[in-house]
This record gives sequence, structure tokens and C-alpha cells, in this order.
Amino acid sequence: MSFRSLTLKPGRLLATIHETAQLFGPKGVWGPESTQTGVCRLSLSDLDKGVRDWFIKETENLGCEVKVDEIGNIFAIYPGKNPDAKPTAIGSHLDTQPTGGRYDGVLGVLSGLEVLRTIKENGFVPNYPIALINWTNEEGARFPMSIMASSVWAENIPLQQAYKLESVTDTDPVSVEHELKRIGYLGPVKASYKTNPIAAHFEIHIEQGPVLEDEERKIGIVTGVQAYSWYKVRVFGKASHTGTTPLLARSDALLAASKLIVKGNELAKKHNCLFTVGVLNLNPAVVNVIPEFVEFIIDVRNPTDEGLTKILADIKETFPIIAKESGKKLAVEFELIYTSDAVKFHPDCISSVRDSAISIVGESKVREMQSGAGHDSCATNSRVPTSMIFIPSKDGVSHSPEEYSSPEDVHIGFEVLLNAVLQYDSFRKV
Amino acid sequence: MSFRSLTLKPGRLLATIHETAQLFGPKGVWGPESTQTGVCRLSLSDLDKGVRDWFIKETENLGCEVKVDEIGNIFAIYPGKNPDAKPTAIGSHLDTQPTGGRYDGVLGVLSGLEVLRTIKENGFVPNYPIALINWTNEEGARFPMSIMASSVWAENIPLQQAYKLESVTDTDPVSVEHELKRIGYLGPVKASYKTNPIAAHFEIHIEQGPVLEDEERKIGIVTGVQAYSWYKVRVFGKASHTGTTPLLARSDALLAASKLIVKGNELAKKHNCLFTVGVLNLNPAVVNVIPEFVEFIIDVRNPTDEGLTKILADIKETFPIIAKESGKKLAVEFELIYTSDAVKFHPDCISSVRDSAISIVGESKVREMQSGAGHDSCATNSRVPTSMIFIPSKDGVSHSPEEYSSPEDVHIGFEVLLNAVLQYDSFRKV
Repeated sequence: MSFRSLTLKPGRLLATIHETAQLFGPKGVWGPESTQTGVCRLSLSDLDKGVRDWFIKETENLGCEVKVDEIGNIFAIYPGKNPDAKPTAIGSHLDTQPTGGRYDGVLGVLSGLEVLRTIKENGFVPNYPIALINWTNEEGARFPMSIMASSVWAENIPLQQAYKLESVTDTDPVSVEHELKRIGYLGPVKASYKTNPIAAHFEIHIEQGPVLEDEERKIGIVTGVQAYSWYKVRVFGKASHTGTTPLLARSDALLAASKLIVKGNELAKKHNCLFTVGVLNLNPAVVNVIPEFVEFIIDVRNPTDEGLTKILADIKETFPIIAKESGKKLAVEFELIYTSDAVKFHPDCISSVRDSAISIVGESKVREMQSGAGHDSCATNSRVPTSMIFIPSKDGVSHSPEEYSSPEDVHIGFEVLLNAVLQYDSFRKV
Repeated sequence: MSFRSLTLKPGRLLATIHETAQLFGPKGVWGPESTQTGVCRLSLSDLDKGVRDWFIKETENLGCEVKVDEIGNIFAIYPGKNPDAKPTAIGSHLDTQPTGGRYDGVLGVLSGLEVLRTIKENGFVPNYPIALINWTNEEGARFPMSIMASSVWAENIPLQQAYKLESVTDTDPVSVEHELKRIGYLGPVKASYKTNPIAAHFEIHIEQGPVLEDEERKIGIVTGVQAYSWYKVRVFGKASHTGTTPLLARSDALLAASKLIVKGNELAKKHNCLFTVGVLNLNPAVVNVIPEFVEFIIDVRNPTDEGLTKILADIKETFPIIAKESGKKLAVEFELIYTSDAVKFHPDCISSVRDSAISIVGESKVREMQSGAGHDSCATNSRVPTSMIFIPSKDGVSHSPEEYSSPEDVHIGFEVLLNAVLQYDSFRKV
């Protein structure tokens, strides 16, 4: 029996997405339908415990062996013909942003569940075990480190560092370790790609951008993740009375910051990069006082490390000049707060995704693309062959209750995942 | 005996400024000297009660009759030859901003005190009584209405409206009425220019801007106060992921707001106005989410009402165009939150200030100017002849602990005030 002839149950995956959204944290009504809300399911919350318990029950019912590691990652392992071989993995996350939608992360885990349900129903036995993984705290919203537990598993971050992270969404902050224990998900298995290995990692995710929709394509074959850096930019000026200080005598930190934000966008166009300021604070924040201090965070991205280095050099050269021209007491300071090199996924996994996607929607409906955002697959890719599948996001919206992918696209994405994983399984050597 | 031959005590006024700063709310160290702090003395606080009690004791010791009105304004009336005539008034305020300096307001009241001390010591008897007034809550920092109690006295604001104002600097807000009672300054005298009248109002104040210092002048003859308006500007965009949304697909509310702030400054140059944004907030304020909403307040000023109307029309026409050009989902909304017409002080009072200033520092060291900021004199001017005297502010700094005027300038300012008031007294008819 070829996996290409499996009988599918279109609609069941989407029903499961909506069922879990309804049970575990619906929030943010954006339309009249009962499915038109987002989800708020913060990592290691009671709602997260709820969906984890549900996930384990569902996968055990399918005959999976479930392992929970010491950072709360859940591995549900469906048996294959070679029971002792490393499993081929499908993974993503069930936690969400505070203003999350129904698809980010959840689509990946529940599409994996639909893969297991489908092969179980069809009596299909893969060559190798298939691990369905729910990674802990991908969002970094409650505990401020994104891609946290997959990075611990990949041994890119020490376990103790993750344990000590304190929540930023609780009045009385609690640690990751505390919350793992409280909800019963500090498991006995060591969090390590060495002792709890997988052979490969596949992840399906919404694009979170508008490219597929705009180009009327159905599947993004994700070849890697772009490089990005976050810098804190501090602009120092001089406070003074708005009513009494002539324009030419000012060192207005907000006016300077505004020019920098506009300039950053111009440089991004020039360098074919992305540049965004999402956070900005100012002092003293009084209507009739010229701001003396502005601090903002720039998020700069480029497909290549070299491209990112170039625009950052240009920013660091240009910003101080603009500040100086804007007022004699104005100065600028940069502080690197995070940087992530470009990630290149594995050619074997990319091939599986490409072949699967083309066979299902045809060459004209797919495109290779980089992910703009980080995912658990970045962590797994540092240790094992990895690739990702993107489906269209309506209007490119994400991290918002209005996040939406059509029922058709959700189904097509699942089919591509199913075929990619089973193709990989069929070609895999050990 | 002419007032021009009075014996002065240079240095005493400054000593009193520093003495009261030290006793009643020193805050914000900016240098090694004991006098190098600002002052935080919020209206109707315990510290304000302290300085009020001190003020009454000092003025009663000079032979003043002290009246406290129902909004806490203190009138210390020094007798003249015509005891029943309306007094010539010198007034300002002893309350400060949370980040206040030693001079704003305080200079005005204590220079007036120095006038009374000087004429008392010299045995000089003015033709008419002289009222030294401490107006309640000029700053509007604790209770959010600036020029509050002089406006009640001028009957431009109903007493009950002021009474009901709640503090914005207390964890548990309290009303003006409550605090007046608590510190014992809800007085028996009706707050009214009709039943508790004055004949004229003089106020000396720091410039709070750099013009006098830059032009090396000693005295500003204040002919009025410029017109100004505050508008809330709301920019609506679309949130999306910073890593996945191409520049051309964005409706970035902060990028648009930045362009508006830069444009507002350009328009201000074109129209010879002042334009400032001192307050700005954005949503959702996440590093990797494009802001979907920015709200900021513009403070726009012009010497004339017509000039202000012109730039506001230009802003309202230009801003929506810029927003639209910045992203297809961007839109702008304006909400007027405060407007103040231009104020013209009285020619008789201006003449007294001009004659006095020129006689003391010479024509080359004075200049006529408008006040950029509002003062209690705006309220009194609506009912009685009024003018103001400005002295230089180092670097134009104000509402900051570093607010500074030199000992020489403080003394010269006092001399100009003394002479202006006594000249007015000598020429006054009834």
C-alpha cells in the first residue's frame, strides 16, 4: 500500500483546530461565527495543561508511546517497522501569544495528529517511528525566550537557564521550573537531542505574511529562515518648554527618533531588507515638554548574514549623523539585544516537501521561500535535517485573533505534510 | 522720598529662594552645591502647606493683612496711603512641577516679598496698597488644570469645577476641595475679582526659553502670550509580523506617525510657528509586531490666533495625505483637547515694565517678547491691567531641576519689578 493512496478525512483537522480553540482559551471575538475568535493559551498555564492532557489522551488512543522531557516537551511516538530507529518527527507548539490566533503553532501539532490518525485508520505502517512533538514555550510570550524548549533539547540553551526564566505576564512572577512542576509536566526524560533523538523534523505553519496569498500560491517550500537582529536605540536630547523654545534651539529627541525611523525604512528599501520599530518609549512624556530621551527597538532582517551586516553598518553610520543634524545636543547609542544568523534547512527535507507540494498542487502553485520569523525548526535544524511547509495567511495577519487560513488551504497543507513525511520515511536510510 | 533712591539688599532675595527650596521640597540633585537641586512641591501637599504657612508669617511680620480665599489663593496686602483703594498686585505661584526647579513661580512670589521687605525697611509708603498673591495650582501637575485658581478668581472657571478636580499624582486620588480643607487653606474670602479686587497685576518669571540668553539681554518686556492648541492625533494602521511582511504590504502606524512628526516640524518652519510632540503611545508595543495604532499629542503655537489657524489647517490637510501614501490601510484622526487664544497684556503695565527695565539695564539689554507659556497673568489680564517681566533662563531650561538664572539676573529682575510696580503706583489714578 502506497501512502499516496491513503483515504483522508477532509475537514476533521479543521474541526479539531476549532474544537481545541474552543476548549482551551478562546479569546478576541472578530466575527459573528463561533469559530471567529483568537486563542490565548500562554505557556504552562492551566489552559496549556488542559490542551497537553488532551493531546496525550488523543495520541495514546492512537497507540503512541508518550514521553515528556524535563522541559515539558511532549514526544508522542507512533510505531514503525523499525521500532528501535530514531523517529521521523513532526513538531510545533500549542502555546500562543496573548493576542494569538487559532493557527500559529497549533496548525503544526494538529496537522501532525491528523497524519497519525490517517495512517492509523488506513492501517498504514511506516518504516520508522513517527514522533509528534509539542515543544514548550515557542512563543516566549509568558516566559521571555522564544523557541525555548526546542533550544534546550538541541542543547543550544542550558536547562537551568530556561528553568530560571520568570513569567512576565503574572503579577507575581513564577519560574518555568515552578510552572512545569505545578501543571505536572516536568517529565523524567532528559531534554537532549543525544539521548532522546529524532532523525528529522518537519513543521507545517502559517506563512504569517502575505506573499503566498498575493501570488495566489498554495504552498511555501521553506528553505531557511532569514537572519535578524534587534538593537535598542537610545536618543539623548534636551528637555525644554514647548512654548518657549525656538525650533532652532531644540534638541528634540522624538523629532530625531522620527527621522531615524523614516531613514531606517529608506535604508531597508535600499538594501532590500526589512526594518521595523515596534516598541518606543519617551521621557518625560508631558504635553508641553520637548522629549529629552527616546528609546526604541529596531528589528532588522535579511535573507543572508552578509546582507544583514551591511544594512546594520549603514544604520550605525547614518543614525548619529542624522541625530547631530537635528540638534546640537542630540546623540545616539546602540545596544544589541538579540541576533539570529540565517538558517538553511536540509536539502533532503526540502526535497521531500517540494516533491510532495508539486505532486499535490502543481509547480505553479508553490514557491520556495525563507521564513521571516523564527520557529522550533530553527532549533531542530541545528541538530537534525529539517524543513518547513507554509500555507497562506489571509492578509498576512498573525499574532492577532484575526489570523486565518482557509479550510481548503489547511487541508492542502496537511496533505503536503503527510506526503512529505511519508516520502521521507520511504527514502530514509536508518 | 522717590522709590528710585530706595536702599536695596542685593543677595537677600536669592538667599530666600534657596532657603525655601531647602525647607520645602528640595529634589533632583544636578550639581555638588547644596543649592544645586530642583524642587518638588506639588499643589496642596504638606510641603505646599509648609511654604504657605511660612509665607503668611513673613508677610504678617511686614505688617500685611493676609486674606485666604475659598480656592486657597493667599493675598498679603501691604498698606498704602489710600487704604480703601484696590491694591496693585504682584503675583505668581509657590507650587512646582514634579520635576520642578527653584525659580518657576517661586521667583515671582519671592521677588514680590523682596519688594515688600524693601519698602518696609526704607519706610516707603506707596500711594495704594500692594497685594502680594500666591495663586493656587498654577502648574496643573497634581490637579490637572493649569492656571487653576487665578482662573477661578477671574471667574473664568466655576469654583465647583476646580473643587472637584482629582489628583493624578496620588495612588488614591483626592479632590482639590478635600486637600484645601486638609491643609487648612479653604479660606473664608470669596474667590472673585469682583468682591476681592485688585487694580493691576505684575508678575516676574523666568523666560523658560533661550532667547534672552542667546541675545545677551537682561529683561524681557512681556507684551502678551502666544496662541496655542493641543490636538490628539490618532494613526490607525494594521498589525503584522515584522519578519514576514514586505515593506510595500505594510500599514505601519509608527512609520506614518514618524513622517507626520517630521512634517509637522517642517510646517512649523514654513509658518513660523512652534510644533512639538511630547507624548506618544503605540499598540501593541511588541518588538516583532508592526504597530497598528499610534496616538500622539501635538502642541502648536503662534503669536497670533490667525497664524495658529493657518498652520492647523495645513496640518489637517497634509497629515491624512501622508498617512495614505504610507500604506493603504493607514488613516488619521484629530481630536482637539485644548486651545488658548493669544493674550495681549495692558499697555499701561507694559509701559511701566519697559520704563523700569530701560532705566535699569539700558535699551540694548531689553526686548519686547511674547510668553510662549501660559501664566497666572493670563487669568488676571482677562479682568485687570497686567504685564510680566522675564529674566534669562540658562539654556532655556525649565520644568527641570537644572532650571537656573544667575544671581545677577535675579537681582536685576527684582529691581525692574520694584520700579515697575512703584512707578505704576505713582502714576495710578484711583
